[in-house]
Amino acid sequence: MSNPTATLLISCPDQRGLVAKIANFIYANGGNIIHADQHTDFSAGLFLTRIEWQLNGFNLPKDLIAPAFNAISQPLGAKWQLHFSDTIPRIAIWVSRQDHCLYDLIWRHRAKEFAAEIPLIISNHPHLKVVADQFGIDFHHIPITKENKPEQETKQIELLRQYKIDLVVLAKYMQIVSADFITQFPQIINIHHSFLPAFVGANPYHRAFERGVKIIGATSHYITTDLDAGPIIEQDVVRVSHRDEVEDLVRKGKDLERVVLARAVRLHLRNRVLVYGNRTVVFE
Amino acid sequence: MSNPTATLLISCPDQRGLVAKIANFIYANGGNIIHADQHTDFSAGLFLTRIEWQLNGFNLPKDLIAPAFNAISQPLGAKWQLHFSDTIPRIAIWVSRQDHCLYDLIWRHRAKEFAAEIPLIISNHPHLKVVADQFGIDFHHIPITKENKPEQETKQIELLRQYKIDLVVLAKYMQIVSADFITQFPQIINIHHSFLPAFVGANPYHRAFERGVKIIGATSHYITTDLDAGPIIEQDVVRVSHRDEVEDLVRKGKDLERVVLARAVRLHLRNRVLVYGNRTVVFE
Amino acid sequence: MSNPTATLLISCPDQRGLVAKIANFIYANGGNIIHADQHTDFSAGLFLTRIEWQLNGFNLPKDLIAPAFNAISQPLGAKWQLHFSDTIPRIAIWVSRQDHCLYDLIWRHRAKEFAAEIPLIISNHPHLKVVADQFGIDFHHIPITKENKPEQETKQIELLRQYKIDLVVLAKYMQIVSADFITQFPQIINIHHSFLPAFVGANPYHRAFERGVKIIGATSHYITTDLDAGPIIEQDVVRVSHRDEVEDLVRKGKDLERVVLARAVRLHLRNRVLVYGNRTVVFE
Amino acid sequence: MSNPTATLLISCPDQRGLVAKIANFIYANGGNIIHADQHTDFSAGLFLTRIEWQLNGFNLPKDLIAPAFNAISQPLGAKWQLHFSDTIPRIAIWVSRQDHCLYDLIWRHRAKEFAAEIPLIISNHPHLKVVADQFGIDFHHIPITKENKPEQETKQIELLRQYKIDLVVLAKYMQIVSADFITQFPQIINIHHSFLPAFVGANPYHRAFERGVKIIGATSHYITTDLDAGPIIEQDVVRVSHRDEVEDLVRKGKDLERVVLARAVRLHLRNRVLVYGNRTVVFE
Repeated sequence: MSNPTATLLISCPDQRGLVAKIANFIYANGGNIIHADQHTDFSAGLFLTRIEWQLNGFNLPKDLIAPAFNAISQPLGAKWQLHFSDTIPRIAIWVSRQDHCLYDLIWRHRAKEFAAEIPLIISNHPHLKVVADQFGIDFHHIPITKENKPEQETKQIELLRQYKIDLVVLAKYMQIVSADFITQFPQIINIHHSFLPAFVGANPYHRAFERGVKIIGATSHYITTDLDAGPIIEQDVVRVSHRDEVEDLVRKGKDLERVVLARAVRLHLRNRVLVYGNRTVVFE
Repeated sequence: MSNPTATLLISCPDQRGLVAKIANFIYANGGNIIHADQHTDFSAGLFLTRIEWQLNGFNLPKDLIAPAFNAISQPLGAKWQLHFSDTIPRIAIWVSRQDHCLYDLIWRHRAKEFAAEIPLIISNHPHLKVVADQFGIDFHHIPITKENKPEQETKQIELLRQYKIDLVVLAKYMQIVSADFITQFPQIINIHHSFLPAFVGANPYHRAFERGVKIIGATSHYITTDLDAGPIIEQDVVRVSHRDEVEDLVRKGKDLERVVLARAVRLHLRNRVLVYGNRTVVFE
Repeated sequence: MSNPTATLLISCPDQRGLVAKIANFIYANGGNIIHADQHTDFSAGLFLTRIEWQLNGFNLPKDLIAPAFNAISQPLGAKWQLHFSDTIPRIAIWVSRQDHCLYDLIWRHRAKEFAAEIPLIISNHPHLKVVADQFGIDFHHIPITKENKPEQETKQIELLRQYKIDLVVLAKYMQIVSADFITQFPQIINIHHSFLPAFVGANPYHRAFERGVKIIGATSHYITTDLDAGPIIEQDVVRVSHRDEVEDLVRKGKDLERVVLARAVRLHLRNRVLVYGNRTVVFE
Repeated sequence: MSNPTATLLISCPDQRGLVAKIANFIYANGGNIIHADQHTDFSAGLFLTRIEWQLNGFNLPKDLIAPAFNAISQPLGAKWQLHFSDTIPRIAIWVSRQDHCLYDLIWRHRAKEFAAEIPLIISNHPHLKVVADQFGIDFHHIPITKENKPEQETKQIELLRQYKIDLVVLAKYMQIVSADFITQFPQIINIHHSFLPAFVGANPYHRAFERGVKIIGATSHYITTDLDAGPIIEQDVVRVSHRDEVEDLVRKGKDLERVVLARAVRLHLRNRVLVYGNRTVVFE
């Protein structure tokens, strides 16, 4: 990261001159754009863009970029986020008993696929503490019952604050997160083990087997209060046949889950995902 | 087809000696097996097999094979179908206004991908008569309204009888076929323009767009009285992105529909599909 | 095409302010940008961009856009092409004996997937004249031998001029086009029936079968004087198994060839492909 | 493994009665067949089959099955292998510096995807000893130079004997194994980081980047003395675009390598792969 960058993710009512105005703002301050992509959703009348430029040689100090850009964006009615590549996000991974996504995320982190830190693992079961220990990551066991859910979610929120977490990754966390929790901490990516919107809810592999599908899938999406209905970031599929029992679907599905979740997390961390309505623009 | 074959598709309660008994029946009569595949569904306790042998050199005349095999299969409690490769099935293609699957099926027929005849096209619209004329296939325009459906279905059934049709292929026929019709003529393959069971029913591409999926699919299945819920023969998918409008999904979907329907029809015609319950075994 | 657009495809040594300068040129003249995408090839030090804007409301008349943009681009050392969506390109399809890509391209043309005209088919065999007749397209039979190749290529060039052809699509044309021809008419898209660079040259399906591959592919590329080595526009693959004979690879390959060639032609016609060196940027 | 099975993999000149004779052998001894699949390679005149039956209730003791089957197979001119599911194969994983396939194989082993033991890791570098230690697997560092290769290979062979290894998995082992070694120990599965036969040899990702391909692949194959030309077990691919630098190809390729190698190893361990000539039949 010898040459850090700034990234703007902007959504704005479509109008003439948007590209010019944004590009001029960066050029006028001496920035070198290394990525610019835009999308127009004609039915929504929305212009959506991602623009990334190098901070070396940029005349505005980092803390003045947001206020300066605000002056441009306000008359346009734009919503935007500003990210710096040298501000490293902090991730909490939440798991239950299955370890495949956890191992995979940790391995990718160590392989430098994620520009992030992973200081915290939370689980409703104690089983995966050994994995956390193996890689020196703090592990908190927070069991959930119908009765204790509100107080346990309070503990979870406290932990996220204490560890300064920016993103929660539900890596096969088999509990529903409450609407209240999501309101307090909305940055949550989930992996669902089906090709959504097929097989929303529990036991998707069993239901895929019973339906006799010839392809199964996995879906990574942002969590909203509507179960398995949040904005989709990434999906992928694999062929199955009549020879595949439910346990084969589960096994094949694990490979999908790992790679689909990892791609979604990586896209998010590189500020490539712009949510609007219940959809995402993925600037790849 | 210089060397015609016979094919048995058998489903049978699982028990010892099934492979031996069936193989012995063919060997004892001098048959040379060129394809044998089996599947055991342990949860259903079912043995399912496909076995194909050359008729040249087979000692039993064609009309005695079924009764002879019956003597073996009855004690086993087996259900079976017998097909001869030199009995050419006759297909009726049903369409509405879209021509892509129709052109594709006709082209594949002429390219010898289907061992079948296509003497009949039925449509609820007159538009595709020009295509039928182009390739010299009889075209019957049978418009459907809420009121006339029963009598029109009677006409359809009569046409199927008159043309000695073995298989109806719904190649984007945008009408629901009644339960009564299906009872009278159950051999119907449909193409549905979604990755079932996602987006059952009308306007799957619009709904896929609204849900913001990253992959769309197509599904070919046998028709049952349960809408879009019959046994799946084949599915395939293609990636889409935020840049794809509904019309792009439709365009990309057409390529899927063509190839998925064609594969399903070809599998069926080669007697590779064995239906049991609401599932298929595809002996590829 | 009620609202025609102009599209610039630009490649340029990377430097600060490129996006701003280009966007300002369009904004200053009242243009509404509907697509802008860029790519920086850091190793080549190249900035590559595609920018499309609506002509309605644009202050510069069409014939002044190029000279006006030249004034901006020359100091930048940029190479560029300018295309107007209401200038409809004219395609010649070249075939030999196989009809699948030909039928497919014609069907897509009629389905409005290609904003182009197809006034001419050229073949070294007479067989596909019936298809040309079926759809009312002029067909010229130009047989090629070792001896007559130079004079026949002269005839081909004359036909391309006479029909005002902008793009030649080799839709399974099984002859090598000479370097001399390519120099005179460089806009040629080919479909090669393998996953290049595997199986360059003749009989790729036979060689794929002998090698025992588990996946086969097809590749669409621009023709250069280096056989099967031109810039790749699109590739796709399909699984095969030990059960697939060479004729099955050919059959499965045809489906790939159709769709891969069609995607490449469509990308080219929409001015989405920018060639630099032996590579393409595909602005999708 | 409460009900162990025996599996025969047979290749045999094609002739009448093969299925019957083999099935009878098993039925006559009270065996219950749970998987039987066959393939006829007509051009080679070969019948290839895999047949698996339960040992519980089988009348022949395990050590008499081979001699008994020999009496049947010899007159047929068949080659065959006999495997028992309760004989657990022992794997040595060979690595260099990259850890992704190693971690993946270990994780799958622990997830019970492989019915095998992994008692030994061999590397020409010391770096991955930490991974071996983490999971309690013996690690031997055997550095290779041009000069010491013969003696080091002798050490490797000794280790394989000492650890009673049945299968060597080259999990990104970046050294060529000598013909002499392969003669002594022929059961070796490799992962090559390209879609073979494209990019045989060194630096496939760099060469794929330079060629401008739109899809990259990975190939798992048995090692022969012909570099990267052994019988292919499994291949898979992933899309890339102009935005992907070489390092992105490497990253995306790692995901392919992991899953393709794992599938090949699992197929081998389940005795699903039958090699003949330079091809494989994969009985899935």
